[in-house]
Amino acid sequence: MSEINKRGFASDNNSGVHPKVMLELNNVNTGHVVGYGDDLYTEKAKKLLQDHLGKDAEVFFVFNGTAANIMGLSAVTRSWNAILSAYTAHIEQDECGAPEKNIGCKVLTVDTPDGKLKPEYLAKHMHGFGFEHHSQPKVISISQPSEMGTVYKVEEIRALADFAHSHDMLLHMDGARLANAAVSLSLPFKAFTTDAGVDVLSFGGTKNGMMYGEAVVFLRPGISDGFKYIRKQSMQLASKMRFISAQYIAYLDKEVWKECATHSNKLAKKLEKSLREVKGIRITQSVDANAIFVVMPRKIAQELNKEYFFYPWDEAAEEYRLMTSWDTTDEDIDTFVALLKRLLKTK
Amino acid sequence: MSEINKRGFASDNNSGVHPKVMLELNNVNTGHVVGYGDDLYTEKAKKLLQDHLGKDAEVFFVFNGTAANIMGLSAVTRSWNAILSAYTAHIEQDECGAPEKNIGCKVLTVDTPDGKLKPEYLAKHMHGFGFEHHSQPKVISISQPSEMGTVYKVEEIRALADFAHSHDMLLHMDGARLANAAVSLSLPFKAFTTDAGVDVLSFGGTKNGMMYGEAVVFLRPGISDGFKYIRKQSMQLASKMRFISAQYIAYLDKEVWKECATHSNKLAKKLEKSLREVKGIRITQSVDANAIFVVMPRKIAQELNKEYFFYPWDEAAEEYRLMTSWDTTDEDIDTFVALLKRLLKTK
Amino acid sequence: MSEINKRGFASDNNSGVHPKVMLELNNVNTGHVVGYGDDLYTEKAKKLLQDHLGKDAEVFFVFNGTAANIMGLSAVTRSWNAILSAYTAHIEQDECGAPEKNIGCKVLTVDTPDGKLKPEYLAKHMHGFGFEHHSQPKVISISQPSEMGTVYKVEEIRALADFAHSHDMLLHMDGARLANAAVSLSLPFKAFTTDAGVDVLSFGGTKNGMMYGEAVVFLRPGISDGFKYIRKQSMQLASKMRFISAQYIAYLDKEVWKECATHSNKLAKKLEKSLREVKGIRITQSVDANAIFVVMPRKIAQELNKEYFFYPWDEAAEEYRLMTSWDTTDEDIDTFVALLKRLLKTK
Amino acid sequence: MSEINKRGFASDNNSGVHPKVMLELNNVNTGHVVGYGDDLYTEKAKKLLQDHLGKDAEVFFVFNGTAANIMGLSAVTRSWNAILSAYTAHIEQDECGAPEKNIGCKVLTVDTPDGKLKPEYLAKHMHGFGFEHHSQPKVISISQPSEMGTVYKVEEIRALADFAHSHDMLLHMDGARLANAAVSLSLPFKAFTTDAGVDVLSFGGTKNGMMYGEAVVFLRPGISDGFKYIRKQSMQLASKMRFISAQYIAYLDKEVWKECATHSNKLAKKLEKSLREVKGIRITQSVDANAIFVVMPRKIAQELNKEYFFYPWDEAAEEYRLMTSWDTTDEDIDTFVALLKRLLKTK
Repeated sequence: MSEINKRGFASDNNSGVHPKVMLELNNVNTGHVVGYGDDLYTEKAKKLLQDHLGKDAEVFFVFNGTAANIMGLSAVTRSWNAILSAYTAHIEQDECGAPEKNIGCKVLTVDTPDGKLKPEYLAKHMHGFGFEHHSQPKVISISQPSEMGTVYKVEEIRALADFAHSHDMLLHMDGARLANAAVSLSLPFKAFTTDAGVDVLSFGGTKNGMMYGEAVVFLRPGISDGFKYIRKQSMQLASKMRFISAQYIAYLDKEVWKECATHSNKLAKKLEKSLREVKGIRITQSVDANAIFVVMPRKIAQELNKEYFFYPWDEAAEEYRLMTSWDTTDEDIDTFVALLKRLLKTK
Repeated sequence: MSEINKRGFASDNNSGVHPKVMLELNNVNTGHVVGYGDDLYTEKAKKLLQDHLGKDAEVFFVFNGTAANIMGLSAVTRSWNAILSAYTAHIEQDECGAPEKNIGCKVLTVDTPDGKLKPEYLAKHMHGFGFEHHSQPKVISISQPSEMGTVYKVEEIRALADFAHSHDMLLHMDGARLANAAVSLSLPFKAFTTDAGVDVLSFGGTKNGMMYGEAVVFLRPGISDGFKYIRKQSMQLASKMRFISAQYIAYLDKEVWKECATHSNKLAKKLEKSLREVKGIRITQSVDANAIFVVMPRKIAQELNKEYFFYPWDEAAEEYRLMTSWDTTDEDIDTFVALLKRLLKTK
Repeated sequence: MSEINKRGFASDNNSGVHPKVMLELNNVNTGHVVGYGDDLYTEKAKKLLQDHLGKDAEVFFVFNGTAANIMGLSAVTRSWNAILSAYTAHIEQDECGAPEKNIGCKVLTVDTPDGKLKPEYLAKHMHGFGFEHHSQPKVISISQPSEMGTVYKVEEIRALADFAHSHDMLLHMDGARLANAAVSLSLPFKAFTTDAGVDVLSFGGTKNGMMYGEAVVFLRPGISDGFKYIRKQSMQLASKMRFISAQYIAYLDKEVWKECATHSNKLAKKLEKSLREVKGIRITQSVDANAIFVVMPRKIAQELNKEYFFYPWDEAAEEYRLMTSWDTTDEDIDTFVALLKRLLKTK
Repeated sequence: MSEINKRGFASDNNSGVHPKVMLELNNVNTGHVVGYGDDLYTEKAKKLLQDHLGKDAEVFFVFNGTAANIMGLSAVTRSWNAILSAYTAHIEQDECGAPEKNIGCKVLTVDTPDGKLKPEYLAKHMHGFGFEHHSQPKVISISQPSEMGTVYKVEEIRALADFAHSHDMLLHMDGARLANAAVSLSLPFKAFTTDAGVDVLSFGGTKNGMMYGEAVVFLRPGISDGFKYIRKQSMQLASKMRFISAQYIAYLDKEVWKECATHSNKLAKKLEKSLREVKGIRITQSVDANAIFVVMPRKIAQELNKEYFFYPWDEAAEEYRLMTSWDTTDEDIDTFVALLKRLLKTK
C-alpha cells in the first residue's frame, strides 16, 4: 500500500483533478437530468469536441482510456481482422489483452526505436490480404504522443494515414495525452488528427486534469455503425452522463487542456535540462511531451524510489520512465534532481 | 434532446450527486495518489464495505452497474454455463446482451408475477447437468430490490441460496439499489446478503446519491480467482481510483446510503398513498422500495409525460413505472398527482 | 458405454453411411487435390446445391450441424443482436450455448405447441428497436422439420419471411433434416427455402445417409460478407474438402437424399400407424417427417429402453421421442411395437 | 480453380486417404451406433492412443487441426492469459486469429532461426506476472515437427517443459505431423511427448493418410476440466463419431502412421539429396521430417509451379516450401528435379 501524497513522476494519472473541472462537476449537479447522455450538457460537450475536431466528428463518451481505444477499434474491425501497432503500444502492453478479449482480433506489432510507427516498418505484416488463413490487417493504431514520449509530426501522421487508406485500412489514434501533443506541436487538435487523415480517435483528459471519462471520436463519416450498441454491451455507457460531459466542458471551454499540458510539457523540459547536466545518467528518447526516459544505475534508482514514485521501463537496460503532470512543481524537480546527484556522488 | 432540470419519476439515476459525496470528492483531491486502487482511500473504502458485509468480503470497484453485474458473474462462470434469472432482470432486459458478449454464456429466464424468483419457478431449467449438449446452470441471479420494486425477505433469499448451493450453484445479487432494500427491510446489509447465503454481490450507489462507480463484492471466500485480470481486460479498472473510493467513503461512513434511501422509499410510500386515492388508475405491484407501477389510460399518461418524465413499462397493458429518488420532493408528488387527477377528470 | 449395433429409435444420427456415399468417398480418393475447397469436386458439389436452391445460392461447407447453424447466423448478426427462435430450437436447447459463445448475441425464445414459430408468437420480443439498452432482433431462426417432427408449409415460411423482412430482419432455416421436409411436402427444396423467402440455410445430410459435413447456404445475395474468414477462424474449414464435397455429390446427384428421406418418413408413418393401435399410449405431435412423440408410462419406457435405444423428451410428462432413419427396417418396428404391447399387457 | 490430380509438393494435405483407413471406415459402417462418442469404436481408439501416450492420457476427438490446437489451449487458458510461440507457429500465422477469437487471449511470439523455440528466446515475454495490466503467460506452444520442417530432440522438449513448469506454465505441442517426428527421431510417441513433459497435445493424422478428425490429448492429469463442454460449444463434437474413431483405429492399430510417415520422410530425404546436387538453389533448413525449404530464382519457381503445386514461403527472399507426403512417388521427385534443372539451365 502506497503512502498518500508521496510525490513523484510515476504517471500523470497520479495527479488529482483540476479545480476548474471540479467546479464544473458542481455546476451541473443541480436537479434532474435524463440519463445515458440524452441531455444538454452532453450535447454541449459534443459540440465543443466538434469545434476542435471538425463538424463531422461523431463523439461518444466512455469511462476510461482502455475502453476508448478498444471501443473505437471495435467499431471498425471484425474478429478476423488484425490491428497493426508499435510493440510498445498501450493496446499491446498495458491492457491485459483487451483487444483480443473484446474484439477477438489479432494485434500485430513491430519494433520501433522511438515508439513511433512508420509505413516501412509495417511491411512484414502487409500480406495475406484476401487469404482466409490469415488475419486481415484493417487498422493501424498509433499513440500521440507515443508511449516513449515522442510526438508524431503532421506529415508523419499523414504518411501513415495515406498508407492505411491505400490498403483499404484505417488509422486509429490513441490520444490519452492528446493535449500534450497539441501543445508540443503548437497546433490545434484538428491539424494533426482530422486534417492529417486520422479516422478514429481516443480523446482523453484523465491524465491531464480530469477525473474519469474519455471520448471515442469518429472523424471519418460512416464508420460508427452500431457503435451505441457496442458501447452499451461493453459496459461503457454511463447513466449519469452529465458528469463526464461536464468535465469535457471545463476541459475545452475553459482551456484546462492547454493550461495543464503546457505546464506538464514545460516541467518535462525543465526536468530534462536538469538531468542532462547530471553525469552518469543518460536520456534515451527525445523529450517531446511530458515523459523522460533515463538510464541510470539500478541501485541509484532504487534509492531514489524510496522518496519519489516512478517506474522502471526496461529493467535489463536500467531504463526508467519519469512523467511530469499538470501539478508537478518546480520544487518536485529541484529536490528530485538534487537527491539524484547526491546519490550518484556517494555511491 | 430533453430539457435540463425537468422533474419527474423516470429513474433514480436522473437525480444528481449528494452534497456529502461531492464534498468527499473534493477532500481526496489533494496531491499525488498512486493509480489503479493501490492507495489508502481505496483501502478505507474496502474496509467500510467489509464492516457492512463481513470481514471476508473481497471488494473490487468498477465503473457502473452493468459492469458490476457482468464482472461478478464472469468470475464464477465459464462460457458453457447458464445464468438463471427472472425474465424482468436487468441482465436480461437492459444490458444489450452484455452477459452473452462478455461471458459467452446463456441467460435462462422464468416469468414471475412480481419480479422475484422462487426455487420452484426454476425447475424447468434444472436439468441436463453433466450433459454436454446443454449449457450448465451455474448461478442464480436476483435483483434486490427487484426490477418490479419488490423486496426479497431474508428467508426468500436464504431459500434461493440453499437451492443454488444444493445444486453446486451460486447465488448472485444485483444490488444496484441495495440501500433501498436495506431501508425497506430495516436490516443491516449483511443480514440479507452474506448471512442469507449470497455469494456474489453488486453493491451500487449511483442511483442513490453517488456519481459513478460500483462495487463487485465476493462474499464467499475462494471464488474471485483471476478477478483482477477480468476487471482490467474488461476495461473496468479506473486509473484515478481514489475518486470512486471517496464516494463509497461518503456513502458508508457518512450514511449517505441511509439518508437517501430512507427519503426515496418514504416518498414512494407517499406517492403510493396519494395514487391509491385516485380513481381510474391501479397500482400493480407491492411498493416495497422506491418504484411504483401504475396502470392508467395511455392518453392520460401521454399528457402527464409532457410535464413529468417517466417511462412506460408495458405499453400494451398501459402500465407505467414511477421511480422516486433521494431528491424527490413533496411538491413533486403533490403537483404530479394533482395534474393526474385533473387530467382524469377532464378526459 | 453402449453396445455396438443395438437397434433403436434414438436418433437418425445413430445410423451409418449410405453405400452410395461411401462409394463416392472412394471415387474421389485418387491423387493430389488442392486443399481447403479450391478443387473441382467442391465446385461440382456447390453447383449441385445451386441447381436445387437457385443460381445465386452461395455455398460454404463446414463440419457439422451446430457449426452450420452458428456460422450462418454469425454472418448476419453482430454481438448486440438477438436471434428469435422457438424454445425447442436446437440452437437454444442442444448446442451448449454455441450462439452466445461464438456470436456473443442473445437467443430469445417463445413457447410453441408444435415446435413451429408463427409471427404472432414473436410479438413479445418485437420491441426496443433502436434502443441501445436492448439487444436488437435481427434474425428469426426456424427448423425445418421442427424439433417436434412437424413440417412448415410453404405459406407458413413465407409468412415468417415477410414478417422478418418487414422489420429489416432475416429468416434463417436449420435444415439438418431438410430432405425429410422436402419428401414430406413433396416439393423441391427451392420451393420452401429460396422461393419462400429464406435468407440463410443450413443444408444437412449427416442424419440422412452422410458421414459428416454440412452446408451453409446464403440464399439472399450480399449477406455473406467476410464469411470465409468466419469459417476459418471458427475452426470449420476442412483441409481435405474433397471428402465433404464427395458426399454432397452422392447425396444430390445420386438422389441419396430422396431415397433415404422417403424411407425414413415412410417408416415413421408405419410406426405411427402401429402405435395408434396400441392402447395406453398417446401420440402428441403430427407425424410429418421421421419423428414420433409418444406419451407412455415411464416404467414401460424403461423396460423398452433395455432392448431399443430412444430418448425421453419430457420426463415429467412421460413423453418420449422416436426417430426413424434411412436404415430403419420393418422388422425394427414390428418387434418394437410387439414388445411394447407385451409390456403394456403385463404391467 | 485447380486442376484435379495435378501432382506437387504444396502440402501433405493434398494427398488422399490411405486404403487401410478407407477400409476401416467401411468396417465400422454397419448398423446403429450411439452418437457423439459414447460407443465401442471410440473407446477402442482412445485406448490405442493411451497405449502410445500413457494410460493417464485423456483423449477427445475434434474435426481438424486448427480445432485441436485451439480447443486444447482453451482448456488450460483464460482470456487474460498469453500463449507463447514461435513467430512461424501455425496458431500465429495460419488460423486467422482463432486463438484470439475463441479464447480471447494473446499470442506472444518470438523469432527463431529454425522454427524451434528455446527457453532463452522467451525471456522478453517472461515478465509482468501478477501485474493486472499485462496478459499472464500461461502456455508455451511448440509444433513438432516445427513449421520449418525441423524436429525437436527429446532434451529440447524437456528443457521447454521444465522452463514452463518452473513458471507455473504448461507446454502444448501441435502434433499435426507427429508421426513424421516420431519416425524422424526413431522414438515411440510417448518418449518425446508425455515422458518429455508435454502437458497438452494435438495428435493429428489428416496430413498423413487420414480423411478428417484430430485428437486433443491431455497428458497431465487434472487439466481437462470442462473440456467436453468446450468442445461441444465450439462446434467440434461429431455426431457420427465412430467414423473419426475408425480412422484412428486404422492409423494406430494398423500402423498407418508409421508406414506413411516413413515414406514421406524418406522421400523428403531423397528430394533433399537431389536438390543439393542442383546448382543455383539453396536449402535453408535442416530436413528432419517431410518439408524442404529452398531458395531459388522467382522466375524459375513460377515456371516450375505451372507443372507442380508448391507454395512460396518468403516471397521477398525467394524461399519456397516443398512438402512430401505419404503418396509422393520417386517419379514425382525425379521429374520435378529434372524440370528444375532444365529451367535453371535455360534461364
